[in-house]
Amino acid sequence: MKDEDFIRGAVPMTKREVRQIALERLDLAQAQVMVDVGAGTGSVAVEAACRYPALKVAAIERNAEALDLIRRNCDKFRLGRVQVVEGVAPLPLPLPFAGQADAVFVGGSGGNLQQIILWAGDLLAPGGRLVINLILLENLNEALKSLTLRGFSRPDCIQIQVSSLARLGNGHYFKPNNPAFILSCQKEKV
Amino acid sequence: MKDEDFIRGAVPMTKREVRQIALERLDLAQAQVMVDVGAGTGSVAVEAACRYPALKVAAIERNAEALDLIRRNCDKFRLGRVQVVEGVAPLPLPLPFAGQADAVFVGGSGGNLQQIILWAGDLLAPGGRLVINLILLENLNEALKSLTLRGFSRPDCIQIQVSSLARLGNGHYFKPNNPAFILSCQKEKV
Amino acid sequence: MKDEDFIRGAVPMTKREVRQIALERLDLAQAQVMVDVGAGTGSVAVEAACRYPALKVAAIERNAEALDLIRRNCDKFRLGRVQVVEGVAPLPLPLPFAGQADAVFVGGSGGNLQQIILWAGDLLAPGGRLVINLILLENLNEALKSLTLRGFSRPDCIQIQVSSLARLGNGHYFKPNNPAFILSCQKEKV
Amino acid sequence: MKDEDFIRGAVPMTKREVRQIALERLDLAQAQVMVDVGAGTGSVAVEAACRYPALKVAAIERNAEALDLIRRNCDKFRLGRVQVVEGVAPLPLPLPFAGQADAVFVGGSGGNLQQIILWAGDLLAPGGRLVINLILLENLNEALKSLTLRGFSRPDCIQIQVSSLARLGNGHYFKPNNPAFILSCQKEKV
Repeated sequence: MKDEDFIRGAVPMTKREVRQIALERLDLAQAQVMVDVGAGTGSVAVEAACRYPALKVAAIERNAEALDLIRRNCDKFRLGRVQVVEGVAPLPLPLPFAGQADAVFVGGSGGNLQQIILWAGDLLAPGGRLVINLILLENLNEALKSLTLRGFSRPDCIQIQVSSLARLGNGHYFKPNNPAFILSCQKEKV
Repeated sequence: MKDEDFIRGAVPMTKREVRQIALERLDLAQAQVMVDVGAGTGSVAVEAACRYPALKVAAIERNAEALDLIRRNCDKFRLGRVQVVEGVAPLPLPLPFAGQADAVFVGGSGGNLQQIILWAGDLLAPGGRLVINLILLENLNEALKSLTLRGFSRPDCIQIQVSSLARLGNGHYFKPNNPAFILSCQKEKV
Repeated sequence: MKDEDFIRGAVPMTKREVRQIALERLDLAQAQVMVDVGAGTGSVAVEAACRYPALKVAAIERNAEALDLIRRNCDKFRLGRVQVVEGVAPLPLPLPFAGQADAVFVGGSGGNLQQIILWAGDLLAPGGRLVINLILLENLNEALKSLTLRGFSRPDCIQIQVSSLARLGNGHYFKPNNPAFILSCQKEKV
Repeated sequence: MKDEDFIRGAVPMTKREVRQIALERLDLAQAQVMVDVGAGTGSVAVEAACRYPALKVAAIERNAEALDLIRRNCDKFRLGRVQVVEGVAPLPLPLPFAGQADAVFVGGSGGNLQQIILWAGDLLAPGGRLVINLILLENLNEALKSLTLRGFSRPDCIQIQVSSLARLGNGHYFKPNNPAFILSCQKEKV
């Protein structure tokens, strides 16, 4: 889905290309339950729910404007399956999200990344996927360190730099997005 | 799907991240027919067919080693819906590929990019998507020029640079993939 | 020199890292005469003149605000050796710039890149260096094409993407500059 | 100077573009004394000494093949002013390097980056520049942390990705160098 397909405000958004890479790493084809942490405009939760018609999604967000955007995007795409959760992760989630999640996506961590990773380990069923998108170097380091502490597989980590050909004067230049880091790993199977 | 999921030889392959971005731009959720031009190992054709169980795919390739890889990958993922076409595009395709394609992906052009773009315009139904992945600057220019000649929408074009965190000595560095260009556009609706 | 060392307005500026790469490719250690085309704030002309105390520099610029900035930067660094030329390149230059230039830098071309390249071939003495910094894809193509028409060596061409670690919230992210292309070549020796 | 200007073996080398950016940040125009740590082929030491005819340089290296390359490059460019020091940094340096250095460049750290940074703080005169080039994420973090412990100014840090247009088949693609990080800071003036 294009970024313009979503109702957007001043809230940061996981960009289209990063979203596709993250969605594939979440490996949702056989999944039943996904949690989107720091859902922002809800773009990852919404695109996941649109793509997989049986997927149950919890979208956690603390910012009031963002919560409103998520709800409006769910309405726009008629997604009753996305449960919007107001609050700061980590927080208690009802079943089937707690302990049975097939996939957790972290798009925003609000300074709690280590705790979120530990908690994601509790949310996920064995073999479940954790995918983290971030731009802060401090968060990259915290994620890499925390993922080795907890029972996750060795994370795969990429840096991605996307530039879009955009008009400037009589020509076109490659307008850069912020470089992003995407980490992904799997909770170990028992 | 991971690059390691595919049987690979010495044939160039559209890399995992580029594949995800291309697949989304092909917009296959409602599609019935897709053509993969210069299919290489068949990774785009195979991942598309795996993701969309009703999709019919034609994978065109001229290289004998690549053709064998495509067939072996189709066998591996039990994809009878992928029709492997030996030859050099542009070439005649049977129905439902000719004139009714919902999406055309060009992963390799063998120096015929302009002709392939013109021909893709014939393959595609109105509103169909054309996505081109390339790394050569000459091909980027030829594609941008040819897409404006023919009845396509103004192409969206990105450059993407992915680096993977890889071990080196006692640490990890970001090992770069080749920067790739991805163009996408739509055949105009009547 | 840092970008902040220069008096700057709303005029585009060749950024610090690109400037260093360009200055080295201009190979000014033994040079006596350099021309800066589309000098903008004058950063390349000024840093070259500061680094090489015997270098004579002509800085060509058409924009009134930019001309004022160049003059103020020359004053700031007490560079009487930089001759500010108001006008649109190509234009006639007096001796020793015409036909005896050791190096020509093109930082802005105002849509005349092909003509500027032909004219640079006239300005340069045999063995002289031409370095072009640009961000527009159209200019990259025009430069690559024009440089092969005229008696220049095969150009070396790089793409450079610099990101600066910058504060964001409680952390730091890599804030991207626009990706730039730098071409350099030499006028053939007789 | 071009990378091909140096006699090279299998030893890693600070690439041309990174070298230019580093040399400028070392701010050697008024400098008398510079130390190159982990000098590799000696490219930074040699280009610095070539550019500044009064500069005294110590090039520290532990690898036998690299030491030989440094010596051969110094011979090639007739640089008696470069003192080649065999050993592992940190190590004792004679005057005028100890405590009077205007600039320290770290191109290789052999796992001792924190100690090297502390020691560089001793080598440098007040106001002296420390520039570190690295590709390992672990070293980036160690450098950023160590530089804040010791009396250095807040470091400036960039990531740079250079790709060179290179022939491939009938066209040209942008062949990527490894992305590098360059940190620079100043020892505080008393």
